[in-house]
Amino acid sequence: MKDHSGLSPARDLLLFTPGPLTTSKTVKQAMLRDVGSWDREFSEVVAGVRQSLLAVAGVNQQQGYEAVLMQGSGSFGLEAVVTSVTPPQGKLLVLVNGAYGDRIAKMAAMQSIALATLTSAESEPPAADDVRAALVADPAITHVVVVHCETTSGILNPIEPIGHVAKQFGKTFVVDAMSSFGAIPIDLPGSGVDFLVSSSNKCIEGVPGFAFVICRRDALGATEGWARSWCFNLLDQWRYMEKTGLFRCTPPTHIVLAFAQALLELEAEGGVAARGERYRANHQRLVGGMRRMGFREFLPAEWQSPIITTFLAPQHPNFDFCRFYDRLHDRGHVIYFGKVTSADCFRIGNIGRIFASDIDDLLAAIGRTLEEMGVTL
Amino acid sequence: MKDHSGLSPARDLLLFTPGPLTTSKTVKQAMLRDVGSWDREFSEVVAGVRQSLLAVAGVNQQQGYEAVLMQGSGSFGLEAVVTSVTPPQGKLLVLVNGAYGDRIAKMAAMQSIALATLTSAESEPPAADDVRAALVADPAITHVVVVHCETTSGILNPIEPIGHVAKQFGKTFVVDAMSSFGAIPIDLPGSGVDFLVSSSNKCIEGVPGFAFVICRRDALGATEGWARSWCFNLLDQWRYMEKTGLFRCTPPTHIVLAFAQALLELEAEGGVAARGERYRANHQRLVGGMRRMGFREFLPAEWQSPIITTFLAPQHPNFDFCRFYDRLHDRGHVIYFGKVTSADCFRIGNIGRIFASDIDDLLAAIGRTLEEMGVTL
Repeated sequence: MKDHSGLSPARDLLLFTPGPLTTSKTVKQAMLRDVGSWDREFSEVVAGVRQSLLAVAGVNQQQGYEAVLMQGSGSFGLEAVVTSVTPPQGKLLVLVNGAYGDRIAKMAAMQSIALATLTSAESEPPAADDVRAALVADPAITHVVVVHCETTSGILNPIEPIGHVAKQFGKTFVVDAMSSFGAIPIDLPGSGVDFLVSSSNKCIEGVPGFAFVICRRDALGATEGWARSWCFNLLDQWRYMEKTGLFRCTPPTHIVLAFAQALLELEAEGGVAARGERYRANHQRLVGGMRRMGFREFLPAEWQSPIITTFLAPQHPNFDFCRFYDRLHDRGHVIYFGKVTSADCFRIGNIGRIFASDIDDLLAAIGRTLEEMGVTL
Repeated sequence: MKDHSGLSPARDLLLFTPGPLTTSKTVKQAMLRDVGSWDREFSEVVAGVRQSLLAVAGVNQQQGYEAVLMQGSGSFGLEAVVTSVTPPQGKLLVLVNGAYGDRIAKMAAMQSIALATLTSAESEPPAADDVRAALVADPAITHVVVVHCETTSGILNPIEPIGHVAKQFGKTFVVDAMSSFGAIPIDLPGSGVDFLVSSSNKCIEGVPGFAFVICRRDALGATEGWARSWCFNLLDQWRYMEKTGLFRCTPPTHIVLAFAQALLELEAEGGVAARGERYRANHQRLVGGMRRMGFREFLPAEWQSPIITTFLAPQHPNFDFCRFYDRLHDRGHVIYFGKVTSADCFRIGNIGRIFASDIDDLLAAIGRTLEEMGVTL
């Protein structure tokens, strides 16, 4: 028996992916109502969400920080930042060690924003000394942009030392914290972060539909006239939210209601530290079990985030990722394709409403699947 | 008793607004699951939605039409079209008789796209002869852009004669059918529409979170290299969907599931004709009741759409829109603020899961509210 969308409603697959994630039932149930986008009740929810985001970031308005929401996916929030906060004569230094850093560079290039890239291997974090050298070599650079957790590989890039260098040189520091915010503590003032971007469907465990930006009010206020796009005008979006409590154009009301619930559940779990602890435990349990089966990770353990893990694909002739994926899917588990360019891999995410028993179930399913496929490691 | 989002869950307000709308319970329930954005099950839903959208538009792929989805609000879809399908040397003629036409002009201006505007009064549709004169006067114009139903006033602009003029002159014709698509029949080939934009939370009665574009494949295919933005690159978004069945970046999965359900419910209701009929009946019932109380509409009846109606605010000294709004809200009805600049008004929408009895309830609530406020008309 299938429902109208063609999906079997009786069975919810567990998502071991970088987002959309498995979310709680109560987060999804918060979407079971229609609220007016211009209604006071909704604007109060928006205001609460913005306040809570600052709290999750460990900052507040008195310290000069603001939270702005932007419709669309996380990439939309990133493009809004990149194209709104770079002055006409500005130049970005984008640190690239995966597809998402590369995408940021592409976003800037599409809008003819001057650009330098500092590329490191997908298995290596960018070095603060290299950032320093790049800033010395090219004084035209005004902004440094880095991805915190590059989900291409799952690597955790060290934003604090990079931020220190950016600040020593007086540069604006932009952090794509898409898949880390809410689970990995980020010291915004201590790391000199001017603009941080994340989205509704990552470690806050909401559902996809908007991005958010946490930023220094001074840095945002200085961007008058710099936005290249009407929709992605971050300063206008913020001013409108401040003035009216509303989005400039139609908000994803249901997604915002779900996110408000997700923020309460993050707090109930014990905040960023407790959530990060659960993800780390998931990660360790996963990696332990995978290693026991003979799998190996793509990244050295020292750079590995607890968010998502890239595993090298077995070299056995019977291994085929699509069949592996499909069989795990049929057992109720959704894993993720590999994205690094330098190795044959697949990825398993640890974020979302995933607990130790879910990891155990996944490991058991992987074991049975390898057996069925006749793959030995 | 309030739930975590601060809203009272026991009571669902009825939305008499231009969207987000009151949607069916089954549409919202379709969001009670998490699906993988890269999973085959989801890509099948996306493919079904794109096919159904063409069917609602009365066209198909064999005739050379395509449907592309774009994350964000309707305005995001519009900006994607405006900035993706205008060549570097192109020039838009934007017909403006309300805030949404004006917004399209602003979107183009922000990206330094050459632009002419043809402005008519908020209570008057643009005349095809004026479009002809504008095209004769300025041969640099390559694209004509018009809003079908301008929700600023509720006016229905005549796209067919305007499209004929655009086509006589060999121009690309872009229609913002945000609030009309799905309820007002549009003859795409007959009106020469090259690109039509609408969104998930209008007459299809889904929830907000993405826009969609229905367009001629040839016209889209010709836009190679024209997009100004990475996220709003319509051609790339389409090619990626064609190749993989997926969005280029994270889709609002839950919203897409709800929309798939909404499309089925549109079909079950009898399609565009039947839905338009219900909205027209809602509209007539509303206007009849409002007139009996002494209200008058802003627009002449001949231009009025069945989507949303602008009523002149009572001139009585006791009338205050905010108090009026709040009291109706407390009675369970959400109406909408006025947006025309030339008169003191408010708006009432007729779209969404709204039926005759809901209109009657609203009219009764308005009557009681006027009485309480001591407003006579």
